[in-house]
Amino acid sequence: MESTALFTANNVWMMICTALVFFMHLGFSFLEIGLTRQKNTINILFKNFFVITIGLLLYCIGGFNLMYPGFDEGAMGVLKFAGFGIAPPEGGMTAEYASGGYTWWTDFLFQGMFAATAATIVSGAVAERIKLSAFMLFTIFYLGLVYPIIGSWKWGGGFLDSWGFYDFAGSTLVHSVGGWAALVAVALLGARIGKFTKEGKPNAIPGHNIPLAAAGVLILWLGWFGFNGGSVLSADPELTSLTLVTTCLAAAAGGVSSAIFSNFLYKNYDLTMFMNGVLGGLVGITAGADQMGPTDAILIGTIAGVIIVAGVAFIDRIKLDDPVGAIAVHLICGVWGTLAVGIFGNLASIQQFFIQLAGVSIVGGFSVLSAFIMLFILKKTIGLRVDTEEEIKGLDLTEHGMDAYADFRLNQH
Amino acid sequence: MESTALFTANNVWMMICTALVFFMHLGFSFLEIGLTRQKNTINILFKNFFVITIGLLLYCIGGFNLMYPGFDEGAMGVLKFAGFGIAPPEGGMTAEYASGGYTWWTDFLFQGMFAATAATIVSGAVAERIKLSAFMLFTIFYLGLVYPIIGSWKWGGGFLDSWGFYDFAGSTLVHSVGGWAALVAVALLGARIGKFTKEGKPNAIPGHNIPLAAAGVLILWLGWFGFNGGSVLSADPELTSLTLVTTCLAAAAGGVSSAIFSNFLYKNYDLTMFMNGVLGGLVGITAGADQMGPTDAILIGTIAGVIIVAGVAFIDRIKLDDPVGAIAVHLICGVWGTLAVGIFGNLASIQQFFIQLAGVSIVGGFSVLSAFIMLFILKKTIGLRVDTEEEIKGLDLTEHGMDAYADFRLNQH
Amino acid sequence: MESTALFTANNVWMMICTALVFFMHLGFSFLEIGLTRQKNTINILFKNFFVITIGLLLYCIGGFNLMYPGFDEGAMGVLKFAGFGIAPPEGGMTAEYASGGYTWWTDFLFQGMFAATAATIVSGAVAERIKLSAFMLFTIFYLGLVYPIIGSWKWGGGFLDSWGFYDFAGSTLVHSVGGWAALVAVALLGARIGKFTKEGKPNAIPGHNIPLAAAGVLILWLGWFGFNGGSVLSADPELTSLTLVTTCLAAAAGGVSSAIFSNFLYKNYDLTMFMNGVLGGLVGITAGADQMGPTDAILIGTIAGVIIVAGVAFIDRIKLDDPVGAIAVHLICGVWGTLAVGIFGNLASIQQFFIQLAGVSIVGGFSVLSAFIMLFILKKTIGLRVDTEEEIKGLDLTEHGMDAYADFRLNQH
Repeated sequence: MESTALFTANNVWMMICTALVFFMHLGFSFLEIGLTRQKNTINILFKNFFVITIGLLLYCIGGFNLMYPGFDEGAMGVLKFAGFGIAPPEGGMTAEYASGGYTWWTDFLFQGMFAATAATIVSGAVAERIKLSAFMLFTIFYLGLVYPIIGSWKWGGGFLDSWGFYDFAGSTLVHSVGGWAALVAVALLGARIGKFTKEGKPNAIPGHNIPLAAAGVLILWLGWFGFNGGSVLSADPELTSLTLVTTCLAAAAGGVSSAIFSNFLYKNYDLTMFMNGVLGGLVGITAGADQMGPTDAILIGTIAGVIIVAGVAFIDRIKLDDPVGAIAVHLICGVWGTLAVGIFGNLASIQQFFIQLAGVSIVGGFSVLSAFIMLFILKKTIGLRVDTEEEIKGLDLTEHGMDAYADFRLNQH
Repeated sequence: MESTALFTANNVWMMICTALVFFMHLGFSFLEIGLTRQKNTINILFKNFFVITIGLLLYCIGGFNLMYPGFDEGAMGVLKFAGFGIAPPEGGMTAEYASGGYTWWTDFLFQGMFAATAATIVSGAVAERIKLSAFMLFTIFYLGLVYPIIGSWKWGGGFLDSWGFYDFAGSTLVHSVGGWAALVAVALLGARIGKFTKEGKPNAIPGHNIPLAAAGVLILWLGWFGFNGGSVLSADPELTSLTLVTTCLAAAAGGVSSAIFSNFLYKNYDLTMFMNGVLGGLVGITAGADQMGPTDAILIGTIAGVIIVAGVAFIDRIKLDDPVGAIAVHLICGVWGTLAVGIFGNLASIQQFFIQLAGVSIVGGFSVLSAFIMLFILKKTIGLRVDTEEEIKGLDLTEHGMDAYADFRLNQH
Repeated sequence: MESTALFTANNVWMMICTALVFFMHLGFSFLEIGLTRQKNTINILFKNFFVITIGLLLYCIGGFNLMYPGFDEGAMGVLKFAGFGIAPPEGGMTAEYASGGYTWWTDFLFQGMFAATAATIVSGAVAERIKLSAFMLFTIFYLGLVYPIIGSWKWGGGFLDSWGFYDFAGSTLVHSVGGWAALVAVALLGARIGKFTKEGKPNAIPGHNIPLAAAGVLILWLGWFGFNGGSVLSADPELTSLTLVTTCLAAAAGGVSSAIFSNFLYKNYDLTMFMNGVLGGLVGITAGADQMGPTDAILIGTIAGVIIVAGVAFIDRIKLDDPVGAIAVHLICGVWGTLAVGIFGNLASIQQFFIQLAGVSIVGGFSVLSAFIMLFILKKTIGLRVDTEEEIKGLDLTEHGMDAYADFRLNQH
């Protein structure tokens, strides 16, 4: 009987965290449309709806069984697969499953929500010029195959797990997996028309709705309560509450540090940098949120905030066009957070640092390679990018025949 | 002691679900204002604030006692009433009440939040031309009397319950009850000026803020975690987590199927159809969310997605003007979901199908009749519809003297 | 073992409430930007991001230890301080800490989220003309020192607590503390250009995005589930669920009463008053949410709704310019709610009323005095207010070099 109550409390927490991770899709949607031009709003929303819906279906059909195949035979597991479709194993609803932390159904849904976020990261970086069909095909491939295969190496009990690689909630397995694909996609797509001058100087292309972008960041922060808090995989009071504390402190430190550092460099109060700093802090703490103390968390966030400012400038410098800063936030801070596990907190050691570096590199290599192959095939077949006229008119009109604010009027009376 | 912990965990879940159902009112608000014209924004928000506030007060004054009167005497219970005002019964705060699933206070608040959603469904369908006073009076009548009376037949232990009618979270008792009233109201009100050409061809009247509408859909999906998850009436790990899985898979399948089917018919990527498909899948799974497996849920959602596309076209064809698609989503998919309980999942049988059909018909008949009587009286007395000039100027100006975006300017620097 | 399950369920509830209180910052952001002019949107968002991030960091560095110093030596405790930085005490993660209601980490984070809300209240009142640097310095002072010192008097076990002063969730300790500072700041700043005619008649300066403001109110209401529900400091089923019921009924009654009363006075359906009435009801019930029955809650909310309408008119009359109504909502209804504990519910008595009055006065005096000193120093040194040209151009351009909707266009096709 006792275990029923604890099992129930644990499962309640995990279901709430699932709901919060789901809600991150509104955060991503708002962030992406807010930071981009109005003429591509419908297109971005369509992509976001596509990612969350197809993501869950793919995870149900195959992803979950690919990611958690069980590794009892000691195989590398790269292509292990427990079969199509989901069905709870015997005992999957009892307190014996997963040490009583949640039911098998909750397990599936929580992990399914995670899977969808990886593809959403790409969506922002390629906004305003990718062909919708190419994006959808890439998403199906990356989310249906690449994400669960990589996930299986660590969370499915594969070789990265046995090496001692540590990635609590996915700085590498989620954020950098999405970030690497974003990097490859942005490189293959090229910059939006007008983003760089003939001399190669970057032009700022302002977004059309900053309040929604700011709301997106706060919604993402809220979602991170579930993203990190749920990665404890139970409601263990100490670990969950520590995780929320480190998560929030890193977010706060990341924001403040980004705001100060960008103010120091550029002499203005840059809201976008503040927002990206919060996100950078969140991504940075994700790999080790349960292994850090408050001071570690503040330091990791502070460094992430500086990295964001430098990272955004660097991406511009190398002439990559990432409209929402996804590469700086998810890839660079994802790498930073993963390495930070070897530098700060309970696991800090030279050896751990190099294991982390190895994990980052292997995941990065595989992500880049698979993203490149798929995107290259798409480029050579259906094409990755809309044509110039479509890009100038905007994808809302050309791909969807809709205007996001068709009836908007000024000063009605 | 043991029961205290389990009781507490259960009650925590139910309170969270209550909060999530409350939050659906933001989802409805965003969806309705996003899909309608700017000049009626304040009016729609006012109606939404009215529905949630008056809804809770009415439910406190009488609705709760009308809906859950107890039926120990075997009466039909159509007009049973436990008295005005709420006060917890003896033992209402102990684990003995409601099998330890929640306290009596939680019970009241969860059900009160449900009640308000039924009236909100009507709000969207009648938008842009209903007289505010008529809407408010109708809401008081429908929400204070009709909804709890119908609810008592099943959830209050009345005759539909004893027949074996199954409606887990309200495809019929909430969504179709709102949907039938929407249908009657739309028929009595007539279409908005300009919605149909002289030849009777429908004109699309585009909404003014699609990002908010899309946010509304995602918020509603989030709210459905509580709407369906809380309808388990405890935090039972297996049932709650199964319910969330079927709910999310049906939503995902509904969205994808609507997007594909509308793309097949109309050759474009229609975001509004995608959004409505998600909602249709959610409404469709609601009657049997705890009785289905993943494949059932995907099938129910997929069919709901097709129904939505056909339903929206059909409503247009019969010259009804439903600006937000409420009839297709809540009524047609509500009926579909209720019947689906007899077709898919644990309860599937010919007999169950006909019981479901009987429940749908009886609830439909009573809803239509009472909505018609009340709306007809309003039409003949104070009038249902604003006059032409008011409709053209917009209700924000004429009913509220406000502009939703009075200070909005373009390209400030 | 039993206590582990209950402890876990309690802590889950408290973490969720923490997340909900965090989410109130989106509510405040939306409310403030929605009710103000477009040209100051970025500035307001920047302030909100600043408050939540610096608030958490300050609370970690010193605030928490200042607010909960322990008072075992019977000292007045005005300047007691447990030291810099947070570190859990022995046993802080066990069910022995805080009667098993939550862990020490949860305690810190929940209280930290509360702290930040007090400063946010000021942000709205001073919008559109305060110098960003002055606001930031004031926030650091008020949030880092004044709020935790006052909080220590009651929630830290100080003299107000030993007097029997009752403030369940902070009508006084949070809302009026913020409200008093707002009052002082507004008086020292002066009105926005154009707010009053030469004859001293108030001009309405309409906001630029009412849908976001309305969303802000609903998000704040949602947040109040955590604000009040979490102030039980455990998931006690009876107290938490009662608290949610009284909270929601007061909000509903406040909204309806404000709408009716303002309709009676001004003959229109004023959405802004409806919204402020909801907030007034919420602030009003906050001091005694766990001590009231449903009828008490409805009465407290109803009176709060009337107070709001009168309060907003009164603030205008005395020529104070509070763009979002923060003083009427947080200060006046905060005082009302605190006094209401002596009038309604379990604690009602003449004696309690005067204790409440004493608490209100002492907190008010200290808040006003410290806010005045700090703001006066700022005024005489760096200056409180932007210069006229900046105010006319808008702070987005002059302080941030950004436009909130730079790319916004009308009728694209």
